[in-house]
Amino acid sequence: MAASTGTSKPSPERIFNTMVAFQETEALKAAIDLDVFTAIAEGADTAQLLAAKTGTSERGMRILCDYFTVKEFLTKKTNRYSLTEDSAAFLNRHSPACLASMIDFLASPWSRRNFGALAEAVRKGGTASETGDHTKAHEEVWVDFARSMAPLTIPAAEFIAGLTGAAEAKPSKVLDIAAGHGMYGITVARRNPRAAIVAVDWPAVLEVAKENARKFDVAERHTTRPGSAFEVEFGNGYDFVLLTNIFHHFDVPTCEKLMRRVHRALKQEGKAITLEFVPNEDRVSPPMAAAFSLVMLAGTDRGDAYTFAEYQGMFSNAGFAKTTLHPVPQVPQQVLLSEN
Amino acid sequence: MAASTGTSKPSPERIFNTMVAFQETEALKAAIDLDVFTAIAEGADTAQLLAAKTGTSERGMRILCDYFTVKEFLTKKTNRYSLTEDSAAFLNRHSPACLASMIDFLASPWSRRNFGALAEAVRKGGTASETGDHTKAHEEVWVDFARSMAPLTIPAAEFIAGLTGAAEAKPSKVLDIAAGHGMYGITVARRNPRAAIVAVDWPAVLEVAKENARKFDVAERHTTRPGSAFEVEFGNGYDFVLLTNIFHHFDVPTCEKLMRRVHRALKQEGKAITLEFVPNEDRVSPPMAAAFSLVMLAGTDRGDAYTFAEYQGMFSNAGFAKTTLHPVPQVPQQVLLSEN
Repeated sequence: MAASTGTSKPSPERIFNTMVAFQETEALKAAIDLDVFTAIAEGADTAQLLAAKTGTSERGMRILCDYFTVKEFLTKKTNRYSLTEDSAAFLNRHSPACLASMIDFLASPWSRRNFGALAEAVRKGGTASETGDHTKAHEEVWVDFARSMAPLTIPAAEFIAGLTGAAEAKPSKVLDIAAGHGMYGITVARRNPRAAIVAVDWPAVLEVAKENARKFDVAERHTTRPGSAFEVEFGNGYDFVLLTNIFHHFDVPTCEKLMRRVHRALKQEGKAITLEFVPNEDRVSPPMAAAFSLVMLAGTDRGDAYTFAEYQGMFSNAGFAKTTLHPVPQVPQQVLLSEN
Repeated sequence: MAASTGTSKPSPERIFNTMVAFQETEALKAAIDLDVFTAIAEGADTAQLLAAKTGTSERGMRILCDYFTVKEFLTKKTNRYSLTEDSAAFLNRHSPACLASMIDFLASPWSRRNFGALAEAVRKGGTASETGDHTKAHEEVWVDFARSMAPLTIPAAEFIAGLTGAAEAKPSKVLDIAAGHGMYGITVARRNPRAAIVAVDWPAVLEVAKENARKFDVAERHTTRPGSAFEVEFGNGYDFVLLTNIFHHFDVPTCEKLMRRVHRALKQEGKAITLEFVPNEDRVSPPMAAAFSLVMLAGTDRGDAYTFAEYQGMFSNAGFAKTTLHPVPQVPQQVLLSEN
């Protein structure tokens, strides 16, 4: 459980910790469900006070908070617990950067079932589930995604808004494909009062995007086109098309098919903005982008975390003259900017 | 996924990694089920060779091995994978120290169910399961334990054999309570040809211990007493009683009750040898012993990782004049030696 010490003697500790790593997810899920981090932020800082506030047992709360002290999400002094900087920023529901809801998607029953059949996925070379063709609607999964994952978008959405020249407030027509919660397009609209967003996703998912557009006061510049990104009429003359976390679900021909549709929908001087996990050529770095490939093996028929060279090939085949790669601060994904 | 950098800016990376930590367990389970580490040890060192050897897809194997390269259980050079020192020692079935079987107990459906109901356990102050009273027989769980967990015993079993003075080969009568796989008592018998072991556990569990006693050629000095450690007739006149990983399942009065029975079974100059997870007084260090408390909250009615002071109190109440604490090299548990 302590970090690897870097000594050369083989140690079973990391292997043991990996065998029980599921316990960490379950403990965090329990703590989030009971809203322990928020309760501590509100001043309930002993097991006794926390138990009273959350309707739990003092004994259970003591053991849970000691565990999160070991895991360095809390500190403990005599019997008082405090949030760390990380848990104060990201697990306390009063924090604007709170990410707690993400566990509902990241550790959803769907995701657990996919990973529970991982040996079978390795045999097949694709998910063992029935829901691996992501050109088809699996609305319950993506509504879940849209409801849970919006908090994670903030740094990348701001970065993308910058790429669209939002600060200059030029009239911009922006297509947001696989919009989900809608927060990428909505952030562009918030930063540029002359941007108009067209969001594409499955009908039930777009209801979440519409809620967010109202919540952030851009509903009058946010319209929707419900349906498959491979079939729905996009319209044309777009200045920008946003493709955030979509290509990794598909095989190469399917990615190219989508990108050809995008190319046709853009103005001549328009740009496609792709946000993706892009591992290096070695496919084992950087860690989060490289490891993401396994999530696609577990959950999709033929999805993957593609390298930059692979994206350049696909996007070139789809008609784009040039694609450049841009790291995004604070985010494991990168942006690919494609233009003529 | 990279280790925490120690910078002071809050980062969501550890929180994100905890939300998806269950993926690490599932990936390791898949790799062990497909025996990937053994296949690499045998020379199948590319995704193509591994796929052929394990009857899987090259694509699935490439993604799985890249993932374990990210997690530092493999290294990758061009397209060839190698074991690290840790995976060579502990995940390759040709290694005598191989721990691969442990995942069958540590991530068993029973353990996952217990942790899946952790919020409820925090509410109650004890497991949400029906199997939380460990004075009762739950043979399927403990047969599973006995079949999976024997490899982990080696360093502690050798240490305990040393405490019994095995090297001097004095005639010794040794009671091995909650013997499980039997490897603690069996190791004493292997190191001391004049030691006779009496193993206590549930009947189906003792079948595993008997198999191991035959396997290690000590069956003629290894007898069994099937039943509850709280009810079965122990006999008396023992030189040593071994209590390995048993007390943590119970509340304090139950621990004392067991230790009184142990005290009566020992010779006047006999010693009780307890192997346990013993956190410091702060209950949040050392990491593995402190975190073990959560496993007991998830899986037992009132079990815990007790401190040394708590054990001293219990063992004193049970009749022992003196209990001392002994760290065990390479092992997260410690030994408590109790005597008159």
